[in-house]
Amino acid sequence: MIEKLIKGIQRTGAPIVVGLDPMLSYIPEHITRKAFSEYGETLEGAGEAIWQYNKGIVDAVCDLVPAVKPQIAMYEQFGIEGLKVFARTVAYCKEKGLVVIGDVKRGDIGSTSEAYAVGHLGKVQVGSDFYYGFDEDFATVNPYLGSDGIKPFIKVCKEEKKGLFILVKTSNPSSGEFQDRLIDGRPLYELVGEQVAKWGEELMGDTYSYIGAVVGATYPEMGKVLREIMPKSFILVPGYGAQGGKGVDLVHFFNKDGLGAIVNSSRGIIAAYKQEKYAAFGSENYADASRQAVLDMREDIASALAGR
Amino acid sequence: MIEKLIKGIQRTGAPIVVGLDPMLSYIPEHITRKAFSEYGETLEGAGEAIWQYNKGIVDAVCDLVPAVKPQIAMYEQFGIEGLKVFARTVAYCKEKGLVVIGDVKRGDIGSTSEAYAVGHLGKVQVGSDFYYGFDEDFATVNPYLGSDGIKPFIKVCKEEKKGLFILVKTSNPSSGEFQDRLIDGRPLYELVGEQVAKWGEELMGDTYSYIGAVVGATYPEMGKVLREIMPKSFILVPGYGAQGGKGVDLVHFFNKDGLGAIVNSSRGIIAAYKQEKYAAFGSENYADASRQAVLDMREDIASALAGR
Repeated sequence: MIEKLIKGIQRTGAPIVVGLDPMLSYIPEHITRKAFSEYGETLEGAGEAIWQYNKGIVDAVCDLVPAVKPQIAMYEQFGIEGLKVFARTVAYCKEKGLVVIGDVKRGDIGSTSEAYAVGHLGKVQVGSDFYYGFDEDFATVNPYLGSDGIKPFIKVCKEEKKGLFILVKTSNPSSGEFQDRLIDGRPLYELVGEQVAKWGEELMGDTYSYIGAVVGATYPEMGKVLREIMPKSFILVPGYGAQGGKGVDLVHFFNKDGLGAIVNSSRGIIAAYKQEKYAAFGSENYADASRQAVLDMREDIASALAGR
Repeated sequence: MIEKLIKGIQRTGAPIVVGLDPMLSYIPEHITRKAFSEYGETLEGAGEAIWQYNKGIVDAVCDLVPAVKPQIAMYEQFGIEGLKVFARTVAYCKEKGLVVIGDVKRGDIGSTSEAYAVGHLGKVQVGSDFYYGFDEDFATVNPYLGSDGIKPFIKVCKEEKKGLFILVKTSNPSSGEFQDRLIDGRPLYELVGEQVAKWGEELMGDTYSYIGAVVGATYPEMGKVLREIMPKSFILVPGYGAQGGKGVDLVHFFNKDGLGAIVNSSRGIIAAYKQEKYAAFGSENYADASRQAVLDMREDIASALAGR
């Protein structure tokens, strides 16, 4: 799956992942009105609105980017109806040829971690049959529980040729509370990064590992260090755009081959029509605004990389 | 909700939470056979088997314990059908008067963490209506992302009078990889414990906080230290029984008032009939074996506490 991601980046020239993190407040009124008129102001109605909104965006950007990253929390808040739309979105994006990174940040131990891995990346056995649950291509995973939490995921990744992005240094302001604490003079996130590199050796693709890391765009200097520590790991970089990360901040996350990083933007793309810059599109044409935001982001990253 | 938990512990004399972590391999054949004959060897069939199995155990133990802890991974592996059974199990346990701790180990930042909190503990707004998603009473949360990940949960807990158990020192062998690393001479888990105590001050019940911690029974000496660091926090203690923790290991997790800890057992109770000790019950009477295992665990803890 890492090969598919790399080919997608090379084909599109866009090391970009579109974060499908819908909030009802992002969805244009004509979509919610129609959904509520069919299903009422219910969980089903919310689900239908989210689905139509996602579909519009995916249709508008799927030729421009290699990957999408649906954030499961935004679906899970609507209970079962929301999770149905998560599953439907994953399946639709895969039909469209996109790599799907399930932003699930799961993490537990032993057979429990394996159950998450099975549910999101693998297949579960029922009697003599096997079924895929949510069937994403990659999943994000939390490392706080150590190797007991990660190895069961790696086992399933090996079987399914799928991958992980493990949280190393997250993009939020308080990520330093624990992640930056010094251990033998080095921050915790560096030790986690070293482990990611080690775990990654167990599951190598041609040039990069199937096991990547999450490092926030908001911490470019730390990204530089982590790039060195995990040379074979792809870095999934959140925090571009709405959270404050800029193109120039991103160059450190890439290797000299121009690969090794994929930058996420969620609100900045999916709710682009709400920004002054793209307001002329109007809410009816929200998906065209998203497309333009992807083109602009591609340009921003390309010029930053060209200028390094 | 912390008051309901405390009253339940006092009423039953059992600081015990039953971990509803079903694996298909635990379920007696007469249950799976019936479920598969109705629904086939499908995800629905697996869901029906899990539901009947859970219901049997809950009916058999609900007067003996204050709380249950369904582990969502074990349901999530079956996709939507599994999660329907998770929701059904939560609702059924609440009907039976049990406190439900959703072992979801979620954790993200800002609006994403809030979405998880809303989905598991609160209610989501759709138009002018509000709906509960999974509606557990407590949720387990991962602290790796710092306060940005925890505060949105606390906000929802305040609104709903619900609570959290935050991972501090987990029960697994590799939990020390990151959690035990020394920072200024003290292990990371102590710093996390201090934060739990601080977060807990924001949401106090009469004597204990709504914000508790997870500390594994397999690390009793660390439990002793953490008990001091977080005097007002309930400690959810996994790792008893199947993972190796014993009654005598548990005394340090309790305060002098005999409260402050609630001990989880999953496999040791729900699959008790598979142990030699309870084999005489037979698989048809698996729920009676679970009941006996709860009684034995209650006795083990009581005598350890009496002997301290």
